Amino acid sequence: MTSENYYLTLTCPNKPGIVAAVSTYIFQAGGDIEEAQQFDDKASKRFFMRVSFSCPVDAATLRAGFVEIAKRFELIWNLRAVKDLKRVLIMASKLDHCLVDLLYRWRIGELPMIICGIVSNHPREVYSSIDFFDIPFYHLPVTPENKPEQEAKLLDIIAKEKVDMVILARYMQILSDHLSKELTGRCINVHHSFLPSFKGAKPYHQAHARGIKLIGATAHFVTSDLDEGPIIEQDVTRVTHGDTPDDLVRKGRDLERTVLSRALRYYLHDRVLNNGATSVVFSD
Amino acid sequence: MTSENYYLTLTCPNKPGIVAAVSTYIFQAGGDIEEAQQFDDKASKRFFMRVSFSCPVDAATLRAGFVEIAKRFELIWNLRAVKDLKRVLIMASKLDHCLVDLLYRWRIGELPMIICGIVSNHPREVYSSIDFFDIPFYHLPVTPENKPEQEAKLLDIIAKEKVDMVILARYMQILSDHLSKELTGRCINVHHSFLPSFKGAKPYHQAHARGIKLIGATAHFVTSDLDEGPIIEQDVTRVTHGDTPDDLVRKGRDLERTVLSRALRYYLHDRVLNNGATSVVFSD
Amino acid sequence: MTSENYYLTLTCPNKPGIVAAVSTYIFQAGGDIEEAQQFDDKASKRFFMRVSFSCPVDAATLRAGFVEIAKRFELIWNLRAVKDLKRVLIMASKLDHCLVDLLYRWRIGELPMIICGIVSNHPREVYSSIDFFDIPFYHLPVTPENKPEQEAKLLDIIAKEKVDMVILARYMQILSDHLSKELTGRCINVHHSFLPSFKGAKPYHQAHARGIKLIGATAHFVTSDLDEGPIIEQDVTRVTHGDTPDDLVRKGRDLERTVLSRALRYYLHDRVLNNGATSVVFSD
Amino acid sequence: MTSENYYLTLTCPNKPGIVAAVSTYIFQAGGDIEEAQQFDDKASKRFFMRVSFSCPVDAATLRAGFVEIAKRFELIWNLRAVKDLKRVLIMASKLDHCLVDLLYRWRIGELPMIICGIVSNHPREVYSSIDFFDIPFYHLPVTPENKPEQEAKLLDIIAKEKVDMVILARYMQILSDHLSKELTGRCINVHHSFLPSFKGAKPYHQAHARGIKLIGATAHFVTSDLDEGPIIEQDVTRVTHGDTPDDLVRKGRDLERTVLSRALRYYLHDRVLNNGATSVVFSD
Repeated sequence: MTSENYYLTLTCPNKPGIVAAVSTYIFQAGGDIEEAQQFDDKASKRFFMRVSFSCPVDAATLRAGFVEIAKRFELIWNLRAVKDLKRVLIMASKLDHCLVDLLYRWRIGELPMIICGIVSNHPREVYSSIDFFDIPFYHLPVTPENKPEQEAKLLDIIAKEKVDMVILARYMQILSDHLSKELTGRCINVHHSFLPSFKGAKPYHQAHARGIKLIGATAHFVTSDLDEGPIIEQDVTRVTHGDTPDDLVRKGRDLERTVLSRALRYYLHDRVLNNGATSVVFSD
Repeated sequence: MTSENYYLTLTCPNKPGIVAAVSTYIFQAGGDIEEAQQFDDKASKRFFMRVSFSCPVDAATLRAGFVEIAKRFELIWNLRAVKDLKRVLIMASKLDHCLVDLLYRWRIGELPMIICGIVSNHPREVYSSIDFFDIPFYHLPVTPENKPEQEAKLLDIIAKEKVDMVILARYMQILSDHLSKELTGRCINVHHSFLPSFKGAKPYHQAHARGIKLIGATAHFVTSDLDEGPIIEQDVTRVTHGDTPDDLVRKGRDLERTVLSRALRYYLHDRVLNNGATSVVFSD
Repeated sequence: MTSENYYLTLTCPNKPGIVAAVSTYIFQAGGDIEEAQQFDDKASKRFFMRVSFSCPVDAATLRAGFVEIAKRFELIWNLRAVKDLKRVLIMASKLDHCLVDLLYRWRIGELPMIICGIVSNHPREVYSSIDFFDIPFYHLPVTPENKPEQEAKLLDIIAKEKVDMVILARYMQILSDHLSKELTGRCINVHHSFLPSFKGAKPYHQAHARGIKLIGATAHFVTSDLDEGPIIEQDVTRVTHGDTPDDLVRKGRDLERTVLSRALRYYLHDRVLNNGATSVVFSD
Repeated sequence: MTSENYYLTLTCPNKPGIVAAVSTYIFQAGGDIEEAQQFDDKASKRFFMRVSFSCPVDAATLRAGFVEIAKRFELIWNLRAVKDLKRVLIMASKLDHCLVDLLYRWRIGELPMIICGIVSNHPREVYSSIDFFDIPFYHLPVTPENKPEQEAKLLDIIAKEKVDMVILARYMQILSDHLSKELTGRCINVHHSFLPSFKGAKPYHQAHARGIKLIGATAHFVTSDLDEGPIIEQDVTRVTHGDTPDDLVRKGRDLERTVLSRALRYYLHDRVLNNGATSVVFSD
């Protein structure tokens, strides 16, 4: 049998012997560790680990054999064959720079995922110059009145398409509290500021008024606390007094694209582990 | 007569002809413009300009001749011979990394200024390994009880020494409202966060708890609104989930040094102009 | 008459009075300076200036009136109405990330230019998922044998379409010495290294072998000296020992896009002035 | 017995089971892994690992027990108690910014090391404002004539003081071929350019002439190939056409300090492993 590539991620209360148990298990299954990262959180006394390895044993057998170790160390864990791609739903609005960027990176193989659908509150014509290949497009217009129905339709799509992660690619609508809770841990947003500065609306205008010298963008998990979910990735770029709010918007587009695509890439490689209000990101 | 180097800075309501008037005046005085920068603030409709030039005419004569132009364009302006160094007072506390850095840059000529004094709430022995040359040292211990007296002594020193700018080089005391107002526009602080995030105490601990991916430092003018004064310079550095609050403190020291020394350097070259809640910084 | 926006760029031997003459001329024509930058090169004793201004006078009249000043100061100069867009020809090969990026930025108005054509050594089908709108596409396959003819056809297109600037958007062919000379000052290339390191072929592999800690990209004018023309813009990103050459290629794509689009943007706003072996770039 | 902290570093031909063997050994010795990093070099087929752990067993016993594993996997390895500080010799010349910076970081505990001595080709008076505490100072003037003797004296100091690493903190002399070979792997230099660009003398002047948009600094191991040894750390900062060579020197000082201190910090924590012409750097 040929070898399969796997990602194993786990977290547990910290105690000695975890690395030895995990690496010995993989070795005895004939596996070869390609990359391993770990983090020992002194504050929460929790341990986090990600192992990328190749192994001739199939996923089901590996999982079954791992149960005993998982029990012994009280692991929350996940084992995934790299070839079993994550299923992603992209939500966009009129500003399409993040959408176009994600599609491009996906097309050339930089983001290994299955795009289950593209959802927008605008019709397909708005994206007439963009090739969606055979990705289903859903036009879900939203108004204050129809929001519950629109979000119900969205949840239907998510369920029907077995979506692993919803990506808000500058989707300019605020999700309802209900939907935010429903999608906790399953939805990544890009906010156009260096959070926690300038939460909420028009962050570039807020930044301009404050006379900031660097603007930023933040990719984070959505929670029911607006712009307060665990941060995955951030970046900044220099601005000056001479930059108008429009200039900040322009410079910010590059940041938003970069930050969102990096966060998504980390997610797609199982590099992001939840740690309460924060994220452990085993970056490459 | 040999030529003198000057910095001219000005701001006024924007109307055509300012650049022509200023540059013609300098030309007719036999001057040669070395560097000129301008900013036309569309929001406030104000114009800002900095000109560095050499000229065989002395400062008093240049100033006298410029009065007519200043009046015509309603200028707020300043003309300074580069050789007339700014007078700076440095305030420090136990953490001496910014103090040591400023003294080093001053010693090797990177920061052209007269250091009128070093003020600390700790005695001279705390800085036993630092050479203060012949800079006067003032030990002004501060307690909740003696704060008004201590600040009065400080204002005395500032007046007596004709201090142009007070530098809070990680001076860990919060200035009273009275002193902050007194020193508005004459006091630069370095805050150990990327403002406006994490105002107030223990910003590195706040940043760690929030799971931020970049930490920052900010040099800003002190106003009576704590950590809300016009920003002069900011910078950030990358951190990860693995960085403890102590690691952030260590990484932050480099940021604080860099940001404060850059802000001071801009100030010493008359590159910082006030624009309401923000600063115009004509960086080189 | 309503106002027109202009860019004026000039260079001349440095002597006093240029700024005064130029700004007075603009003022007397009823113009209002929006942005002005200058550079006094002590080494070459040359002066460089860029002025962006609005003015109710038409371009022809402005140019005619300026001749006297130009003569007096021995100016090499250019005056352009902002609305008279530059004409750009993009050349691409199989790697289409720069091409797609430039088209996107052009579509959303970030790069104000007329794209006269897209030239490739590959047929149109290779770009099947890209919308070229009504931009003419030229398939000019190149082999060692037909290179002179292919380049002749290219020069025909450049002449016929009155192309101002040719952009090599990761066009993987080396131009002949003849063509390079022909296009000196009229052709911008993006090289996938931090020049002058790693000139020539496979720079990411060279960088990997050398164990470099940051990789870069460089946008520069093409000259007949391969990868030696004046640099317009550069940027870098961090890499580690763990990054394979393929990882460098991936990380480099983002750099190449950013660096080329910034260089082109500077060019389209007349911010790039030639200074012998280097470029003066009046960035915003 | 209380626990001791250790760093274990190793490299070997890659084969499965190393991580399991190492982590099991540490676990069975009662140890707790704090941090572990590994690198599987596909090109050289070698494996690299660094483990930081605490353990109640003493170093000698741990080393003795590890011999069997080391033999089985053909390890080149090192185990060190964190409290056994590295012994470092600093060499400086007139430009003292790196020297001052290293001393400062050492004084406040940022660089855990024993400074065995400071060597300079200038006398002690040149550093009159610097507190050397009780670190021995060696004045070893160098001329073309006395170079062999001077280097012999240096090697004597290195031997007598059991120096682990020589730090060239902007020591402006080129080491002889003989000395370079003698110190291979035991000497870190900071070069004031982004290597491999601008090797040799006056790199800032070379960079200025080439019109570079970012300048850099590089910390690397010294080998007998001038400026060609394995790179440990690099960084860059933005410059413009307006920066003179003197400005580059000023901006470069900050880079040199940062890059050298980071490289030294990595070394002092056993984070730097040799990999032929390159370095594996397990950064934190």
